[in-house]
Amino acid sequence: MEKEFVFGHQNPDTDAIGTAIAYSYLQNKLGYNTEAVALGEPNDETAYALKKFGFDAPQVVSTVADKVKAVMLVDHNEPQQSSADIDQVKVTHVVDHHRIMNFNTADPLYYRAEPKGCTSTIVWKMFNENHVEIPANIAGIMASAIISDTLLLKSPTTTPEDKTALEALAKIAGIDYQEYGLAMLKAGTNIASKSEEE
Amino acid sequence: MEKEFVFGHQNPDTDAIGTAIAYSYLQNKLGYNTEAVALGEPNDETAYALKKFGFDAPQVVSTVADKVKAVMLVDHNEPQQSSADIDQVKVTHVVDHHRIMNFNTADPLYYRAEPKGCTSTIVWKMFNENHVEIPANIAGIMASAIISDTLLLKSPTTTPEDKTALEALAKIAGIDYQEYGLAMLKAGTNIASKSEEE
Ligand SMILES: [Mn+2]
Ligand SMILES: [Mn+2]
Ligand SMILES: [Mn+2]
Ligand SMILES: [Mn+2]
Repeated sequence: MEKEFVFGHQNPDTDAIGTAIAYSYLQNKLGYNTEAVALGEPNDETAYALKKFGFDAPQVVSTVADKVKAVMLVDHNEPQQSSADIDQVKVTHVVDHHRIMNFNTADPLYYRAEPKGCTSTIVWKMFNENHVEIPANIAGIMASAIISDTLLLKSPTTTPEDKTALEALAKIAGIDYQEYGLAMLKAGTNIASKSEEE
Repeated sequence: MEKEFVFGHQNPDTDAIGTAIAYSYLQNKLGYNTEAVALGEPNDETAYALKKFGFDAPQVVSTVADKVKAVMLVDHNEPQQSSADIDQVKVTHVVDHHRIMNFNTADPLYYRAEPKGCTSTIVWKMFNENHVEIPANIAGIMASAIISDTLLLKSPTTTPEDKTALEALAKIAGIDYQEYGLAMLKAGTNIASKSEEE
């Protein structure tokens, strides 16, 4: 089976990168040949989460059509937020928690959207629906995505299912999500280096 | 909770009407207040299936915004195939097996698409994922939708999951799907009345 890239939006956040890693893992287990990539370098928060759970940053690409024929999108669907040449590849799967806008396809596809606080909450449901076990490091990066998008379950977009998912994932990852979450969010604000610059 | 209409495309086929009935039942079980309606009268095939499983034809509507504020779509997403005033209501849920085209929303929503032979195959998965039992008559109308869209599993769009779903649903409905399917498809061709007219 030919390889497909899995990626989130430009200027990636922890959901875009973390959920791409998790969804690519799930799709590999389900028989697809996928690789998580990113449309930009991880920010400080995401870099902290990747390091914590032992992941290298995904390959950064700005175009995809020169490398694959088909792709899977997470955490976005709008073409203007995607790779510059998204119109030159086939989108076979989307998992997202945003409105749908200017997303048109030539063929039927897998599209899974839910109005939840984070894409990883939806992917957590998909792991369960497909009875695929979640490894500790994948659970950790998904928990990081939920913490990031919901600001530790405090953003107005947070739903009860985000809390259920975060609790379940934190247990698998073996972390205290309050403690880890504050540290991760703090890494994102990068207070130390900003203070030095100022 | 305010009522939402659930409906398929204009010139409805057995998937559009049958899956609207089944998905409305599922969503009611999940806590929504829904009513299956249709954008046109059932064709002869659909009328045969509705009668077989004891359903009245759903209310036919040409506009929806005068009756509800929010709707759920099955078996279509393109506005030009939907109610004339679809732009005046909020689409909260979509279940479909077609390409996505000109479907834009202001807000996040539930969207579930898979490249299967019939929308009822996807709704059958959703019943299972949500651990909702399927009553015999609902199973029968879903089986009818799959038989219709896949021409008894013979159309090129048929997938292995359509077969699995049809077998499971036929068992719940207590029908021999080959025998019933031929009778239903024959009712759709309306050979008797056509012969008389000719
Ligand atoms: Mn994001
Ligand atoms: Mn997100
Ligand atoms: Mn149809
Ligand atoms: Mn259909």
